[in-house]
Amino acid sequence: MSKGTDETMTTSIPKEEITGRIEKLRSRLAAAGLDGALFHYGVDIFYFTGTRQNCVLWLPVTGTPVLLARKSFSRARQESLIEDVRPFPSSKDLPQIFGENAGKIGLTYDVLPVQHFNFYRSLLPHREFQDLSAINRDLRSVKSLWELDQMRMSGKLLADAFSRIPGLLRPGMRELDLAAEFEHLLRRAGIGGYLRIRGFNQEITGIAVAGGNAALAGCFDGPITGRGHWTAAPYGPSTDMICEGQPIMVDYGGFYNGYIVDMSRVFCFGRMDPELEHAFSASLAIQEWVRENLLPGRTCEEIFAGAARMAEDAGISANFMGHPGEPAKFVGHGVGLELDELPILAPKFKVPLQAGNVIAVEPKFLFPGKGAVGIENTFNVTEKGGELLTALPDDIVCL
Amino acid sequence: MSKGTDETMTTSIPKEEITGRIEKLRSRLAAAGLDGALFHYGVDIFYFTGTRQNCVLWLPVTGTPVLLARKSFSRARQESLIEDVRPFPSSKDLPQIFGENAGKIGLTYDVLPVQHFNFYRSLLPHREFQDLSAINRDLRSVKSLWELDQMRMSGKLLADAFSRIPGLLRPGMRELDLAAEFEHLLRRAGIGGYLRIRGFNQEITGIAVAGGNAALAGCFDGPITGRGHWTAAPYGPSTDMICEGQPIMVDYGGFYNGYIVDMSRVFCFGRMDPELEHAFSASLAIQEWVRENLLPGRTCEEIFAGAARMAEDAGISANFMGHPGEPAKFVGHGVGLELDELPILAPKFKVPLQAGNVIAVEPKFLFPGKGAVGIENTFNVTEKGGELLTALPDDIVCL
Repeated sequence: MSKGTDETMTTSIPKEEITGRIEKLRSRLAAAGLDGALFHYGVDIFYFTGTRQNCVLWLPVTGTPVLLARKSFSRARQESLIEDVRPFPSSKDLPQIFGENAGKIGLTYDVLPVQHFNFYRSLLPHREFQDLSAINRDLRSVKSLWELDQMRMSGKLLADAFSRIPGLLRPGMRELDLAAEFEHLLRRAGIGGYLRIRGFNQEITGIAVAGGNAALAGCFDGPITGRGHWTAAPYGPSTDMICEGQPIMVDYGGFYNGYIVDMSRVFCFGRMDPELEHAFSASLAIQEWVRENLLPGRTCEEIFAGAARMAEDAGISANFMGHPGEPAKFVGHGVGLELDELPILAPKFKVPLQAGNVIAVEPKFLFPGKGAVGIENTFNVTEKGGELLTALPDDIVCL
Repeated sequence: MSKGTDETMTTSIPKEEITGRIEKLRSRLAAAGLDGALFHYGVDIFYFTGTRQNCVLWLPVTGTPVLLARKSFSRARQESLIEDVRPFPSSKDLPQIFGENAGKIGLTYDVLPVQHFNFYRSLLPHREFQDLSAINRDLRSVKSLWELDQMRMSGKLLADAFSRIPGLLRPGMRELDLAAEFEHLLRRAGIGGYLRIRGFNQEITGIAVAGGNAALAGCFDGPITGRGHWTAAPYGPSTDMICEGQPIMVDYGGFYNGYIVDMSRVFCFGRMDPELEHAFSASLAIQEWVRENLLPGRTCEEIFAGAARMAEDAGISANFMGHPGEPAKFVGHGVGLELDELPILAPKFKVPLQAGNVIAVEPKFLFPGKGAVGIENTFNVTEKGGELLTALPDDIVCL
């Protein structure tokens, strides 16, 4: 039955979550010499308030946070766990929101457009602004127990969807048909169609690509982009028919209560080239080694280096993590409210892992003209190594 | 058959298109006293080069444009109609790309994040930067004859998909089921899943919403947002069942060769409330009046004012274009490579229409607890009034 009223939607965030996040942010702000944070980006505002209406959030180190709602004020007021929700004020009234003591204000320079920045700079001429991006992303990279529960559920639902892929595969279907079928299934389950990416210029649909198309170079900051159907959107599935013997790479994110997990599996009509089978075995070995090393204190760069070494030992380092010569420069990436969270298992990332980091590990190998093989699962970093959130057999499913 | 090679993808842009666009931009840059434009945003780069790889484009008023490819260089080189394509240089080598004479550089401040802006500012300390957003958006708002052909095809394909909705509707289905079915159909046709929105913080999935859910206030800058399934993504379809007598509002964009058109239709199991039928008739009358006035020289604000007056005359101005008290402030919006192009049929937009503006006209009325009715079609502005690009009967389809 359609409710047709202003009732609360599916799920919500416990109030203590929000309080805890704000407390952690405040100590980071204070340590950075900032008087407050001014958030503009939808996902960030959702993280600190529980609402993803179009708002601006002023979060001072001391004093009450204020949520300024552009659209919709009524839904923001209803959904927000921050109590002080107001309609977005006129430019004349905006400065007084910040009070006298807010001399240094943090902003997320990684996503804020220059036009918005200039608006606030001209409105608040005697304040100093500072980039808050690193602090913001760092805070989000460690998941709370409650967040881990959301991500476990996200993993369970996505793995369940992946388990139904063999039933969707039919000889003669096009990449686009497989994508359409799988997205239909994800959408009906309420977990499809919401992939959020923070990185500038990053866009992707789900990846259901076969054979050489999976091994093309591409615009996406991941190992696999696909050919795509349009030059205007050169990623994801194409109208090419999936052929016997081709590895079919299916790489999708799921979404539960805002939280994204990421997984990939390989399917095949008939048997695959032995070279690809060898590479797939190497992927599994790398994944297992990385999983064992997803321990607090291990650094991102040492994990990447270990994985890269294993690819080299397998004699296929040129094919590791991308089209030869144009690889993605990581073997795993943080996930959470966004597909591209911290930490990143990549060279030069000296940051040590922490318990509660959630990382999609995706060792993959690309063979131009032949296809891509590999594995992707999402893990939680614990004292015992990676806890698998996307439980489903890793094997290639041959049909 | 999967090609599995680096062949050209579906469709392409004629070289003269690109040349013409660059010429037009150059005269606008010169008139604004700028020495060149530095584009970063994927859609903008696609418009001026024909490739949507992840690149930066330096387009000087005099001299050769240079495309600097971050990822993928090989695909950018293959797809670009600009000849000088290079891998993105090191920070040390980047300044010399711009030469000595580029003192004033235009950037699209509407989308460029502050972090990127600061990177270029520190790298090019003796240059001046200026906002290019208005010029960029204005250029795009007038479509060439070739672009109009793409948009006609986009409209034809989307209208064809809409014509199949009655076959998807089944009593007892949920909003999410209808969305999943329709998106499946769009995806298989290669026109679904690519909706691009330029506005900061704007995100939406397709809208397949019924009854009171369609009449909720929402975060999206349009008349209808929907309830959504998650507080984390409060838009689009929910798991509510579609009931008899409820107007079912289906509002989706289509995509052909990069070009987006937008349309909506209303469906219903059984008969609708006479109040809603009255409002639907008013929508059709407003659409027809607007269509007649989509003439070069008419201003956006006078068209909006005329539409608003007709809503008032019908006695339902409080319900016009949104949840009462929180309406969208327009009756039509430009479409093209993005869903939110110029011009906008809105108050205070004094800009006169030009032949080749393409506008989605969407007079709609929202009745809290009951639902939303209205119409949306995409029109090309001509000397004879709006040319319909999304031809399909406007009537409510009762099942």
